[in-house]
Amino acid sequence: MTPLLGASRADATTTWSLHPDRALPPDPAQRALARTILDETARLPIVSMHGHVDAALLADDTPFPDPAALFVTPDHYLVRMLVSQSTSPGPVRDAGVRSVADLGVAPALGAPEGTPPAETDPRAIWRRFCAGWSAFRGTPTRAWMEHVLIEVFEAPVRPSLETSDALYDHLADRLAQPEYRPRALFERFGIEVLATTDGPADTLDAHARLAAAGWGDRVIPTFRPDAFIEPMRADWGDHVDALGVAAGIDTTTYGGYLDALRARRLAFVAAGARATDHGHELLDTTPLSAEEAERAFDCARAGSLDTAGARAFTAHMLFQMAAMSAEDGLVMQIHPGILRDHDGPDARRFGPNIGYDIPIQAEFTRALRPVLEAFGHHPNFRLIAFTVDETAYSRELAPLAGAYPGMRLGAPWWFLDASDAMRRFREATTETAGFRNTSGFVDDTRAFCSISARHDLARRADASYLAKLVGEHRLDLDEAIDAAIDLAYRLPKESYPSPVSSLSPLEAAR
Amino acid sequence: MTPLLGASRADATTTWSLHPDRALPPDPAQRALARTILDETARLPIVSMHGHVDAALLADDTPFPDPAALFVTPDHYLVRMLVSQSTSPGPVRDAGVRSVADLGVAPALGAPEGTPPAETDPRAIWRRFCAGWSAFRGTPTRAWMEHVLIEVFEAPVRPSLETSDALYDHLADRLAQPEYRPRALFERFGIEVLATTDGPADTLDAHARLAAAGWGDRVIPTFRPDAFIEPMRADWGDHVDALGVAAGIDTTTYGGYLDALRARRLAFVAAGARATDHGHELLDTTPLSAEEAERAFDCARAGSLDTAGARAFTAHMLFQMAAMSAEDGLVMQIHPGILRDHDGPDARRFGPNIGYDIPIQAEFTRALRPVLEAFGHHPNFRLIAFTVDETAYSRELAPLAGAYPGMRLGAPWWFLDASDAMRRFREATTETAGFRNTSGFVDDTRAFCSISARHDLARRADASYLAKLVGEHRLDLDEAIDAAIDLAYRLPKESYPSPVSSLSPLEAAR
Amino acid sequence: MTPLLGASRADATTTWSLHPDRALPPDPAQRALARTILDETARLPIVSMHGHVDAALLADDTPFPDPAALFVTPDHYLVRMLVSQSTSPGPVRDAGVRSVADLGVAPALGAPEGTPPAETDPRAIWRRFCAGWSAFRGTPTRAWMEHVLIEVFEAPVRPSLETSDALYDHLADRLAQPEYRPRALFERFGIEVLATTDGPADTLDAHARLAAAGWGDRVIPTFRPDAFIEPMRADWGDHVDALGVAAGIDTTTYGGYLDALRARRLAFVAAGARATDHGHELLDTTPLSAEEAERAFDCARAGSLDTAGARAFTAHMLFQMAAMSAEDGLVMQIHPGILRDHDGPDARRFGPNIGYDIPIQAEFTRALRPVLEAFGHHPNFRLIAFTVDETAYSRELAPLAGAYPGMRLGAPWWFLDASDAMRRFREATTETAGFRNTSGFVDDTRAFCSISARHDLARRADASYLAKLVGEHRLDLDEAIDAAIDLAYRLPKESYPSPVSSLSPLEAAR
Repeated sequence: MTPLLGASRADATTTWSLHPDRALPPDPAQRALARTILDETARLPIVSMHGHVDAALLADDTPFPDPAALFVTPDHYLVRMLVSQSTSPGPVRDAGVRSVADLGVAPALGAPEGTPPAETDPRAIWRRFCAGWSAFRGTPTRAWMEHVLIEVFEAPVRPSLETSDALYDHLADRLAQPEYRPRALFERFGIEVLATTDGPADTLDAHARLAAAGWGDRVIPTFRPDAFIEPMRADWGDHVDALGVAAGIDTTTYGGYLDALRARRLAFVAAGARATDHGHELLDTTPLSAEEAERAFDCARAGSLDTAGARAFTAHMLFQMAAMSAEDGLVMQIHPGILRDHDGPDARRFGPNIGYDIPIQAEFTRALRPVLEAFGHHPNFRLIAFTVDETAYSRELAPLAGAYPGMRLGAPWWFLDASDAMRRFREATTETAGFRNTSGFVDDTRAFCSISARHDLARRADASYLAKLVGEHRLDLDEAIDAAIDLAYRLPKESYPSPVSSLSPLEAAR
Repeated sequence: MTPLLGASRADATTTWSLHPDRALPPDPAQRALARTILDETARLPIVSMHGHVDAALLADDTPFPDPAALFVTPDHYLVRMLVSQSTSPGPVRDAGVRSVADLGVAPALGAPEGTPPAETDPRAIWRRFCAGWSAFRGTPTRAWMEHVLIEVFEAPVRPSLETSDALYDHLADRLAQPEYRPRALFERFGIEVLATTDGPADTLDAHARLAAAGWGDRVIPTFRPDAFIEPMRADWGDHVDALGVAAGIDTTTYGGYLDALRARRLAFVAAGARATDHGHELLDTTPLSAEEAERAFDCARAGSLDTAGARAFTAHMLFQMAAMSAEDGLVMQIHPGILRDHDGPDARRFGPNIGYDIPIQAEFTRALRPVLEAFGHHPNFRLIAFTVDETAYSRELAPLAGAYPGMRLGAPWWFLDASDAMRRFREATTETAGFRNTSGFVDDTRAFCSISARHDLARRADASYLAKLVGEHRLDLDEAIDAAIDLAYRLPKESYPSPVSSLSPLEAAR
Repeated sequence: MTPLLGASRADATTTWSLHPDRALPPDPAQRALARTILDETARLPIVSMHGHVDAALLADDTPFPDPAALFVTPDHYLVRMLVSQSTSPGPVRDAGVRSVADLGVAPALGAPEGTPPAETDPRAIWRRFCAGWSAFRGTPTRAWMEHVLIEVFEAPVRPSLETSDALYDHLADRLAQPEYRPRALFERFGIEVLATTDGPADTLDAHARLAAAGWGDRVIPTFRPDAFIEPMRADWGDHVDALGVAAGIDTTTYGGYLDALRARRLAFVAAGARATDHGHELLDTTPLSAEEAERAFDCARAGSLDTAGARAFTAHMLFQMAAMSAEDGLVMQIHPGILRDHDGPDARRFGPNIGYDIPIQAEFTRALRPVLEAFGHHPNFRLIAFTVDETAYSRELAPLAGAYPGMRLGAPWWFLDASDAMRRFREATTETAGFRNTSGFVDDTRAFCSISARHDLARRADASYLAKLVGEHRLDLDEAIDAAIDLAYRLPKESYPSPVSSLSPLEAAR
């Protein structure tokens, strides 16, 4: 189907390289401006305040096993795109991709009979990815992988069916070298601080080991209580029990439950956390009265709370999380509007986060009102809101972030952290919220190797947008450079301040 | 009101011509890239898989009657724009446009007293269009008409009140020549295959005549059952009766109704159809149980199904259509979110499709879930979704098409098939879905003469977008050219494969 | 936090100036085209048909008091942005901004204990604004203030903490001069006509004084009845009483209420009004029967109408307003989708319009249907719709305005009247509605001094968009110039025609 591809110049005869002006505007004058701005941010340290790298990776610092385990199997962007081509004529189907299992994703425990066993040959998995390289044209995966393969791993040729084995050997060779172990890459990427995501009942032992190794300020936990505040989940009760064990507090009562959450938040603060993180399908922050909340908690523990009641309790608990943030200073991150496990059958076969998470409409103006009315001007409160529904940018999020001192607008997230989408984000939000009501880029990734590629792309997008403002005489160059430094470095630091200083001595000592 | 217009250079003194670089980016370097890409697609055959040309036009191959009947009266884009200016001071009102009747649109049977009789003088209708030429500035109608008038009909001057009669004579002269008969234009446009839209009870006799003339593979039907699966329509029962007659199957029972639909789908397959087409105001694909469906059908036949029940039955039938597609291989096209006949009084006066169809919000993530969970990985199933609600591009449609192998994202449609809107489509969808999860351009037109103009404009828009990717070093030129050929030619062919091969011999023989 | 800012060139060592090509495209060829177009519109008179300047300002023509009272305290764009930075480290917090009170906004009557007293030192308020100058980067406030300060007030340096006092003295000096009194600026700005916004019970005495001074055609009222048709408001009854007094008609009955509204509309017509203006959180125009409406009115007067009933009555009254517009020829402006006083506590402390107004989703297709079906083709009816929800542009508003002769699409409004947003407006609406179904720019401002800056920026945005059409060979230059003149001058005049001529002698004489 793609005769030209096989004959493509870059595949075969030229050296594969990263263009220094990639993702900058093509017009020469605009490009020169963008480069001038980018020169001031390209080498700034990375402040990565929202992500999903496993802290144990850095605590253990063991080498990455193989190219498939590093690049393909855990990256849902990659896996989704390849599976999306699995019934169409073309190289992906020809390479044998029928389901996520062919890319090494293992069936979940209890998967039904007939669920395909996961491919275990990393070379075969890698080959399938290479065969499907053309499917990623125009996507950020393409940009990130190109950056990582060329810049970090010095890969000599564009992935393709033909180059797959040679590339595999090249990468496997690199992974065996000490410079490619996690901490070495961390240093090489210039990461100043990296936030992980952790459950309230987690022991944070990897973070403790990191602290013992002097890395405590560099890798910090984030408090993510979703499963602990959603009684509609079947395993909510188990989570509440585990919370009690972790906190050493009886969580069979509503009061104990709140105390245990408060205690675990302080344990996270003590371990260096700067923020909490909240992702729910629907957003609502309406509080219940203490009596209503207690009654709902008791019903939920007894298994007799209906769906509407469970949703109201989750909304109430989001309000409580905001109240606790105003107390303990943890920044409250919120990102609603994702329908998890859209493909139920696949989720049951292969486990959660495989059944495709798909955005839905999100509403912020009414949903955040209770929290913003209560804490939006509180000097110790900060809410950072993310969306995958672009329609809220100019309509709701920029007006809110441009008004309430306690709110900032998070960076373009998930499906929106690519070149064109990042441009749309700035164009839709800056005119109402400015730059300083946004919180800087977050990579939100579990793909450790892509962190520097993602921050690089974001800095290029911001430099391009700022170059446009300068080129259109809407901003002077010195201001654009200052704003670029804000976006790349100062704002992520300032948006996620260390909460310790804001605690009273009594609280800090708890 | 528009003194400059009368004095405009192009009207009077210069030759009217099509610029070879129209709709390409103005920057010289970007334009050169776009031209290089466009050069590889401009002369590829047209694969027009979704449209509304009447098959009889090509079966009969009779000459087009006159310029008004060809260009004005049947083109609702044109008619709407002219009517929209009918109460404003200016050339349209001055030219005597008061309602659609002044543009030749006839009152419907049973139109109320006082409904204005349709203008019958084609020269007067054409004059009204020419007088209103400036109203189309910036619209795709302007681009298409310019292309058709200059490229196809060699019109020498820009339309205006002054040039109207000369242009009319010029066009009428051309229409009398054999090179301007439908089949000659079909060849000249380089159309490889053209899909029409047909009701399940249609005899497909025009297609049979085309097949007899050796044109069976070039003009193919599409199965459009909307009126047959919406019990809220007053004429639903009549349609179900007609379906029974066409299929030779008793449709007074739910089982017979399903069998008749299945049989007519196979008749369409035998006549060369590749797809079905479904347009409903609301999108829902939730199936009922067989018992519920049977009960709903019986109530609907008895006239006792309420609106909610009728909607649920339509949703169920969309699920059935998907199930039948997985069986017989017809691609399922779906395009919800249009409120038909918005202006009820005008619809009653002048007939359906006159009262203005206006978009409403459309939801896809939840609405398509039942069908995608059931058939989204089926090797014989393909769903192509269209929208006139751009907000669903990055939020819902690209994430869905970028995940499920059984789904592709249809081209920008209806109000969105213009230069800027087509750019927004690629910018909003490519980063998540790539190119190969889209299905290529569809012209969706009943204006036969505009088909080549529409595909030309779409190829220019895609070349411009791809040139941007190359100019920003996000894609290599060889890949961009390959992607352009995908979009212009390979993807529409591949997205609508012939279903015959997928049928079992037994089914194919039915 | 911002070391580079202090060292910025423009702050200290260079002259502050307005670039003649500001807000035009950076590409030299495109910029030349945009300039050619802008040259034809830049000096056209300003027709400002929708705004909130107080007519007394021009009737009294007293000098503006001081820079803070002129530029900061009454401008909610400015106040919001500064307050949004009040808990973040940086110059705004350092300058002492804690709440709106620190910017001179006074607590409302009956504000709770502890509400901070308003700052009364204009120099201190001005200093806070200057200290926060960098917060406005990329916003229209930045563009407007730059224009006003440099072009109108000849300010020599960029605002900053350091330059604050010198700038204050410079501005105060200018404000004492006769050339800076309101009428002198009105002439200098080239304003041909300026519409104010007025309540139905207003005496219009400032307009009468203007008329007596020969300014009656230059400053005209607009009829804004929101508070008089929303029974959900606590003060609705008081407004209905005041309406009765103003009209000299008993408004205790529904019939009298309608008659009084009709009479006041005619009084506005007599005073030169061209339009009504309607802003409601939700949009609905469904009429009630006369009996239902009468019953709802009586219940509302008795205080026994529930929320649903009150909303239905408001919808009914919007339909009545449309019916009256078809009678008396006042253009009906509508702009739904704003949740007023989002921050209830701040609204209670500091008064309405301080508690932040935040957009919500707006629906037009169904909501406007009753009015458009009834009056959309009426030769004497015009509806102009505005939105702060961009999603409605291509989906609902352009299709409606591109079909109904009685509807036009209003200019990008409020949060959307900035460079990038105005470009998005044209790109999203022109391809469906063209130019002549839009109504031209409205500044919608109470900041008198910014009027010329806002129209200037809008003309630059339109010139840039039109230059793109010319550069892409989608429009000829003569047409682009003609369209630019339409947008800048002809369309606002034509969209808001004087209704007097359309009244029958009997009506006009009432």
